[in-house]
Amino acid sequence: MILVNGEVRQNIDVFDRGFQYGDGLFETIEVDNGRPVFLDRHFSRLEHGCRRLKIPCPDLNLLTAEATRLSDSVVRAVLKIIVTRGAGGRGYRQPDSVWPTRVVSLHPFPDYPEVFEREGICARFCLTRLGLNPALAGIKHLNRLEQVMARAEWNDPAIQEGLMLDLDGHVIEGTMTNLFYIRDGRLHTSPVSAAGIAGITRSVIIELADLHRLELAQHYFDTCELLAAEEIFVCNSVIGLWPIIRLANQTFTVGPVTLKISQWLADYKQQWLCRC
Amino acid sequence: MILVNGEVRQNIDVFDRGFQYGDGLFETIEVDNGRPVFLDRHFSRLEHGCRRLKIPCPDLNLLTAEATRLSDSVVRAVLKIIVTRGAGGRGYRQPDSVWPTRVVSLHPFPDYPEVFEREGICARFCLTRLGLNPALAGIKHLNRLEQVMARAEWNDPAIQEGLMLDLDGHVIEGTMTNLFYIRDGRLHTSPVSAAGIAGITRSVIIELADLHRLELAQHYFDTCELLAAEEIFVCNSVIGLWPIIRLANQTFTVGPVTLKISQWLADYKQQWLCRC
Repeated sequence: MILVNGEVRQNIDVFDRGFQYGDGLFETIEVDNGRPVFLDRHFSRLEHGCRRLKIPCPDLNLLTAEATRLSDSVVRAVLKIIVTRGAGGRGYRQPDSVWPTRVVSLHPFPDYPEVFEREGICARFCLTRLGLNPALAGIKHLNRLEQVMARAEWNDPAIQEGLMLDLDGHVIEGTMTNLFYIRDGRLHTSPVSAAGIAGITRSVIIELADLHRLELAQHYFDTCELLAAEEIFVCNSVIGLWPIIRLANQTFTVGPVTLKISQWLADYKQQWLCRC
Repeated sequence: MILVNGEVRQNIDVFDRGFQYGDGLFETIEVDNGRPVFLDRHFSRLEHGCRRLKIPCPDLNLLTAEATRLSDSVVRAVLKIIVTRGAGGRGYRQPDSVWPTRVVSLHPFPDYPEVFEREGICARFCLTRLGLNPALAGIKHLNRLEQVMARAEWNDPAIQEGLMLDLDGHVIEGTMTNLFYIRDGRLHTSPVSAAGIAGITRSVIIELADLHRLELAQHYFDTCELLAAEEIFVCNSVIGLWPIIRLANQTFTVGPVTLKISQWLADYKQQWLCRC
């Protein structure tokens, strides 16, 4: 089922600015036994994105009701929320009154084998670079051509994720995930202030590392530094955490720090589900 | 009237990748007495953009028929063509078979006063920077949040265009136009290989300069270099050419080189209309 501004529909106005300019934001949320996981965090990010793009944020009570309507009694699925600046305006100029469009849709949970989570995945480095743009970095906006082009680079079903470098050669993230590595027992991840998305699972992991006094460094790193890691993993709201066991002809193991963080994440999710 | 894949409609599939990811391209074309001006050039750029984004280009005979259907017996209007990668695919990954979406729509010609062309406009520098991304630069793709944010910076109706700098401080173009300046009788414009759009009118002006042996330099320049210019103008397919007469508290005149290029452009357009 798809709700467009609360109505069951499968289409949007051709003049919606989401279609004309990618003028909007989105959230991708795991649904677990009828509950959109970390909905509060997704809404915080959506509100923050709206503020940065100066889109009036839709009423979150309304969005909660719509998300609940779609997720109710669903065992496992993916909920996607899109918010755009709505239709109208002359060219890039926004209309004097903005009526944002909200699209809430439910999708089958991807059929990822369980081994990805337990035993790890193969990844590659993409040739498509992430452009540098601090004004848009971090936000989960609808301008996603870089990710589309990077994901089109490979068809090999044995490769589950492609890692993307920015223009300066820093490894930033995966096409659909954030990236962490472990070296000397210390956790590392890239900033997302010039390129990349501030993922929800990324932020949860950063908080959990702090809580458990696992040292974390947010800094830029290149492919050599990454390949010298002891453990590597990627994460997002749908997959949770996937260790990387093969990258650029090197092999890695599913190490103790990754396993520990994976457990913290699972526990935190359970606590969240019990609390809400 | 709006044609979506040849059908009279005003909406598109909510899962169209143009809406989900800005995964597509567009062209904005002047219609003059039933004729889409420089349609051949717009189609060349569309084909080139499709090649770069690996979107199968729709049949150009079909697009020509649709453009003609909408433009026929229209005195003056703007024709917009959008081509997207169509609906489907899982996440960023494109579907195995891509059926591009084409949207052809006709819009009233903007009510720009004639004085803009004759006597010039006021412009400003925008704070929003253009990100750097050679993979997407030059292409008229649907990821246009930077332009939307830049255009939202001012509401003063006395200002007609905002000039955008890239991350390195180079002045690249206007929010909806390309930019040229003249100094010591020489024409200057920025490359569009790391940021910016390769405009149709820009390319015509570059060819006309070559034809008339007007020296042209394509190079990066900063605001100081621009403000030291003798003449400045912006251009696009709808406005043609607008001299800039006020920018950052400095005044400029509508100079002889600008007037000459404006005349070349008008003549070239007439020749094109007679030829086709």
